[in-house]
Amino acid sequence: MTELKAYTALIETELAKIEFPESPSQLYDPLRYFLGIGGKRIRPILTLLSAELFGSTANKALSQALCIEVFHNFTLIHDDIMDAAPMRRNMKTVHEKWNQDVAILSGDVLMIKAYQLLGKIEPKLLPPAFELFNKTAIEVCEGQQIDMDFEERSDVSIDEYIEMIRLKTSVLLGCALEIGAIVAEASSENRSHIYNFGQHIGIAFQIQDDLLDLYANPEKFGKQVGGDVIANKKTILHLTALKHASLEQREVIKQLQNENNVELKVDRTRRLFDQLDVRSFCEARMQEHYAIALKSLEMIDVDASKKEALVGLAVFLMNREV
Amino acid sequence: MTELKAYTALIETELAKIEFPESPSQLYDPLRYFLGIGGKRIRPILTLLSAELFGSTANKALSQALCIEVFHNFTLIHDDIMDAAPMRRNMKTVHEKWNQDVAILSGDVLMIKAYQLLGKIEPKLLPPAFELFNKTAIEVCEGQQIDMDFEERSDVSIDEYIEMIRLKTSVLLGCALEIGAIVAEASSENRSHIYNFGQHIGIAFQIQDDLLDLYANPEKFGKQVGGDVIANKKTILHLTALKHASLEQREVIKQLQNENNVELKVDRTRRLFDQLDVRSFCEARMQEHYAIALKSLEMIDVDASKKEALVGLAVFLMNREV
Repeated sequence: MTELKAYTALIETELAKIEFPESPSQLYDPLRYFLGIGGKRIRPILTLLSAELFGSTANKALSQALCIEVFHNFTLIHDDIMDAAPMRRNMKTVHEKWNQDVAILSGDVLMIKAYQLLGKIEPKLLPPAFELFNKTAIEVCEGQQIDMDFEERSDVSIDEYIEMIRLKTSVLLGCALEIGAIVAEASSENRSHIYNFGQHIGIAFQIQDDLLDLYANPEKFGKQVGGDVIANKKTILHLTALKHASLEQREVIKQLQNENNVELKVDRTRRLFDQLDVRSFCEARMQEHYAIALKSLEMIDVDASKKEALVGLAVFLMNREV
Repeated sequence: MTELKAYTALIETELAKIEFPESPSQLYDPLRYFLGIGGKRIRPILTLLSAELFGSTANKALSQALCIEVFHNFTLIHDDIMDAAPMRRNMKTVHEKWNQDVAILSGDVLMIKAYQLLGKIEPKLLPPAFELFNKTAIEVCEGQQIDMDFEERSDVSIDEYIEMIRLKTSVLLGCALEIGAIVAEASSENRSHIYNFGQHIGIAFQIQDDLLDLYANPEKFGKQVGGDVIANKKTILHLTALKHASLEQREVIKQLQNENNVELKVDRTRRLFDQLDVRSFCEARMQEHYAIALKSLEMIDVDASKKEALVGLAVFLMNREV
C-alpha cells in the first residue's frame, strides 16, 4: 500500500526525534538502539488514520501515536527476556546485546516514556485517554501471562486462545485507534466502534499469522514455512487439529512433535491438518472477526469516503502473503 | 511516633482494599503477596501529611498516596531481580518465590496500577500530577542504573554518590509530598518548597542509613552491624574513607575487603574509618541536607502550627536507631 508509506515515514522521523539523555548510557543506549531497528509501525499509523477519520489531523495525534508505538516496544523488550529470544527483526534483542538487568530497567523507562508522550495530549482529553491506555496496558500484560501459562497446559480451548490473542495483541490495536478518536473528540459511540474495528482486525490478523506459517507461498514468505510446527507452538491450527482429531490422530500429532526430521515433520503435520480441514476451520474463524471489524467500521457515523484508508488497510492486512 | 500509627493503619487498610483479579494467578498472586508483606509506608504518609498541611484532607489524597506506595513496590520487585536479592522484609522476594518472568511481568502490572491510582485524582489536577510523577519515575530508574554502574567503578565521588541517592530514593519522597500539595491545590512556590523538603530529608535519611550500618547500637539495630562493610558496599562511609586515606591506608582498605574473618573485618574497618574521621564528615554532610530540608519547610507559606506533624516526622527519622 503505497499511500501508507508517507505515514510510516512520518512515524520513523518522529520516533527518531525522541530525545533520550546521553547518560546513564546503559539505560538509554538500548532505547536508541531498539527504537531504531524498525518495525511495521502499524499501531501508530492506526492512531493517525483514526484521528483523520474523525476530522482531526495526523499531526495533532502524533504524540499519542508515538506513545502507542513506544509502549509496544517496551512490551517487546520485556517479552524477549521472558521468551529468551536472541533476535528480533534480524537484530540482537536488548537482553542479548547488553544483559538482562539492562533490558528490565530500560524497558521500565520506555514504558514511562510512553506515558510522557501520552501526556502531551490536550489537558482536557488526558483523563479519558489515560483511562483507556491504563486499561489496555494491563490487558496486554495479562495476555502475555496467559500466553506463558498456555505453554504449561495441554487443554487450551480455541476460545481461550482467541481471548489470549485479544488481550496480548488486539486490544492495543483498538486502543491505538480509539486514542486517535479521542484526540479528534469523536462521540463515545464512534469511539467504541473504532475500538471494536481494531480489536477484531487484530484477532483476524493473528489467526492469519498462524495460517501463513504453514500455508504461505514459500517464495514470498521470507521465513521458513512451518516454523511454528517445528517449534511445537500451540497455534490455533494446532488447537483446531487437536479438537477435531480422533484418539489415533492425537497420538500421531504427539509423535510428530518429537520428530527430528524437520521437513518430514512439517509435511506430515500439514497432511494431517488437511485431513482434519484445519485450514478452512481457521479461515472461517478469521473471516468471522474480519466481518465484525468491517461491520464496526460501517457503523461509524462519518462519511463512507473518509473510511477508505482504513478499509484499504484492513484489506491489505488480510491479503498479505508475508 | 504514636501519631503516625493512625496514618500507617489507614494506608495498610487501603492497600488491602486494592482489588486484583483472581486470574491470571501468576500475575496477580505475587502482587497480593508483595503488597501484604508490610513496610514502613513512609512515602504514602508523606502524601497524606502534605495534603493536610495545605488545607486538604488525608482522605482526599488517599489514591495518590497509594499510587506512590504501589510505584515504590514496583521498583522493589524489579530491583530485587537485578540485585539477585533472595529476601525482603524477612520474606522471599517475588522472583525467588515464583520466578523471574513472573517478577518482571507482575512488576510491570504494578507500575500500571500505580498510574491507575494516580488517575483517580480530580481531572483538572491530573496533568500536573502526571507530569511530576512521570519525571520522578524516570529519575528513580536512572538512580537504579547509576547505582548498578557504581558497582563497576572505583572512582565514584561523594557528590556523584549523593546525586545517585537523590535520584534513586529522594525524588520519590519529594514527589510523594508534592502530589499531596497538588491535591490540596497549593501554590507553585509551596509545591516547590515541600518537594525540596522531601528531597533533602531523603538524602539525609540515606546518609544516616549508611552511618547506622556501622555505628548503630547493636542492641537496638536489629540487623548485623557492619553488614555493608562485610558486603563491600560502596557507601558514603567507604567513599569518604577513600577520599581522605593516604596511599597506605587505601591499601589497607583494599586488603580488608578480602578479609574473611567478618568480625575482624568490621572492627578494623571501623578503627580505620575513625582515624580518618569518616563519621563526622558524613554526619556533617547529613546535617547539611537536614538543614536545607528544615529551611524549605520553614519557607512554606502556611501557619507554623500546621507544620508540626512534618517537623515531628523529620526529627523522628533523624533520631532513629534502626
